[in-house]
Amino acid sequence: MIKKYVELLEEVKNKKPLVHHITNYVTVNDCANITLAIGGSPIMADAIEEVEDIVNIASALVINIGTLNSRTIDSMIAAGKAANARKIPIILDPVGAGASGLRNQAAEKLLSQVKFAVIRGNISEISFLCGLESETQGVDASQKDQQRNGKELAKGLAQKHSCVVAITGAVDIISDGSNIITVGNGHPALSQITGTGCMCTSLIGSFCGASPATPLESTAAALLSMSIAGEMAFEKVGNMGNESLRMAVLDMVSKLHSETLTRRAKLNEEV
Amino acid sequence: MIKKYVELLEEVKNKKPLVHHITNYVTVNDCANITLAIGGSPIMADAIEEVEDIVNIASALVINIGTLNSRTIDSMIAAGKAANARKIPIILDPVGAGASGLRNQAAEKLLSQVKFAVIRGNISEISFLCGLESETQGVDASQKDQQRNGKELAKGLAQKHSCVVAITGAVDIISDGSNIITVGNGHPALSQITGTGCMCTSLIGSFCGASPATPLESTAAALLSMSIAGEMAFEKVGNMGNESLRMAVLDMVSKLHSETLTRRAKLNEEV
Amino acid sequence: MIKKYVELLEEVKNKKPLVHHITNYVTVNDCANITLAIGGSPIMADAIEEVEDIVNIASALVINIGTLNSRTIDSMIAAGKAANARKIPIILDPVGAGASGLRNQAAEKLLSQVKFAVIRGNISEISFLCGLESETQGVDASQKDQQRNGKELAKGLAQKHSCVVAITGAVDIISDGSNIITVGNGHPALSQITGTGCMCTSLIGSFCGASPATPLESTAAALLSMSIAGEMAFEKVGNMGNESLRMAVLDMVSKLHSETLTRRAKLNEEV
Repeated sequence: MIKKYVELLEEVKNKKPLVHHITNYVTVNDCANITLAIGGSPIMADAIEEVEDIVNIASALVINIGTLNSRTIDSMIAAGKAANARKIPIILDPVGAGASGLRNQAAEKLLSQVKFAVIRGNISEISFLCGLESETQGVDASQKDQQRNGKELAKGLAQKHSCVVAITGAVDIISDGSNIITVGNGHPALSQITGTGCMCTSLIGSFCGASPATPLESTAAALLSMSIAGEMAFEKVGNMGNESLRMAVLDMVSKLHSETLTRRAKLNEEV
Repeated sequence: MIKKYVELLEEVKNKKPLVHHITNYVTVNDCANITLAIGGSPIMADAIEEVEDIVNIASALVINIGTLNSRTIDSMIAAGKAANARKIPIILDPVGAGASGLRNQAAEKLLSQVKFAVIRGNISEISFLCGLESETQGVDASQKDQQRNGKELAKGLAQKHSCVVAITGAVDIISDGSNIITVGNGHPALSQITGTGCMCTSLIGSFCGASPATPLESTAAALLSMSIAGEMAFEKVGNMGNESLRMAVLDMVSKLHSETLTRRAKLNEEV
Repeated sequence: MIKKYVELLEEVKNKKPLVHHITNYVTVNDCANITLAIGGSPIMADAIEEVEDIVNIASALVINIGTLNSRTIDSMIAAGKAANARKIPIILDPVGAGASGLRNQAAEKLLSQVKFAVIRGNISEISFLCGLESETQGVDASQKDQQRNGKELAKGLAQKHSCVVAITGAVDIISDGSNIITVGNGHPALSQITGTGCMCTSLIGSFCGASPATPLESTAAALLSMSIAGEMAFEKVGNMGNESLRMAVLDMVSKLHSETLTRRAKLNEEV
């Protein structure tokens, strides 16, 4: 079963997909480094005058609303339309959806005007996109939201937007509206590092850029890679501190190979 | 004496305050990571359309003018007014005040239209805000300014703006206009890492967000945490290099606990 | 022969040049940290209202178009003109030139309205500036472009713009239009870290800021410093992973001294 996910990792390394990011300035350096670490090539470009040109040479587009503003929202829409025209996969990271009217409207506008291949968020963000009363606490998932039924939410939102939805957390849940894949790897300490969610989204961009025909499996392979790298990182650094852990995650992603993925994967397919 | 500062650290960990940052893009990742490391939750948002919404869910607001522009200055003012209306503490980091007319005007505008709980800067920045001829050298404190009487300056500026003023340097000075607290921990090598000042301000935001009623002590506890983490970091990495030191500082902040704070504190209260 | 390059390093440490950056938000933290690590002082400022003021206190200006937009392009032009008026050296990093019309036009506009002391890019970017059909792959050099004759390109572009041109890669090539210097230090693994190019440019800014009269040698000394730090970093961390390597590069830059530079330099002057 794990074989196809391993092959998707090898595809990233073989194809070195160019992943165009319109993303936030908080975690952008980590997103660039993790894209390189997995074998892709990142390019960050958010000026509306150039997003079409960049989409034209890219294999995937990542849209992350972490530090959005009116200028970049317009660029996201324009880039999204260009990427749809070229039929390259677009990944949405609705950072902090539920936390402000601007984020909510931007997410709504993007979802109505752009066709996404994958939406990845935490349980609070996905709950909000499902139209639920979300008890948001900024950009981190709230305790209360974590009690929700993630599988139902992922499946429902995937059906609504005809795309893949991924909810990352203690167990990652990925659905295309009918099938569900769960990833049980990872470590709780990862929640204490900023940008682990954004980095997951960049990895999804890399995997979907290399293998756009299988968004469900590509997304699962990306989250499997991050989760396994995360647990290996914790095994290596233990309680040395948050920043050592952050560094080790990036190190481990850059060293991931087929054998490790095969041996460690805690992956379940509900088809 | 140290007991109250230790309790303030515990308050951060118990309350996990959401700290809204409008900050520069140079050190923003470090600010997010240090906020998580001490036990808070960071959110970075600078679009004027959303700053009020974000202030409404936040426990503190950090305004850092490191890479300001006309768009973000407006957002700072709007966020500041909203935070004043909600009576949550606002911390000002006047990065590079004295280095350009724009920074000077922005600092003046902010100080006249927004009521700050705490202003934190280096001796050059605080000298400028005191109306002194400052021999600024960009964003770092100048040699000449370091000869000034920091206690007098902190006290005077605190009285002028009815707030707490913190001057960070070899010895940190904190005053509310009548009392003065000094923190003698730290290590000179920290000046060779970008963002240590910004990170101090984020920590002040976290402590004041958790304990807004005691801005003098909350600020001192934040600087004590950073300084102790800094000296422990240097003890650990020695002369391995700047980046190892930067990493170790963040690690040590994430591992700070009551016992370490109690044992290491070089804190003096002049009440 | 190596003696003059060693002296240029000492000049940076003695003069601590203030290096004004208008740069991208992806690698800006690394640029600030590497400037401090080599002995300079970084200031990042991109608001058009303040760039003249900042240029007035700076020793060098770095213009990096990595995440340009219409607002910052105007600031780059204004800052460049102010720096030309003050006769301080300006370094151009044409990140991703060839990848979009906006980048191409911005590079052209900058080169026609501002006099640069140094242009540093990878072989794809420099090929584009030479008017060649560039097979760009985003911000990384393409395989095909790497077969080109870098020495001819560097020399030609240097003559065209009466400046120094540096092409960084497996072997770094620096030319002022008549002389050529090559640097053979470094390690291939460095290409897997984002920002190594941008960091080279910041180092050139630091060396040229300290020693503006010798742009050819100052640029070579900067690239020699980065390349030696890179190979030492790889020797230290081996295959620990990308992020350990990134950290070690910054560590090694902060610890570089004359003896190491003298002993390791693989530098060739074709005069």
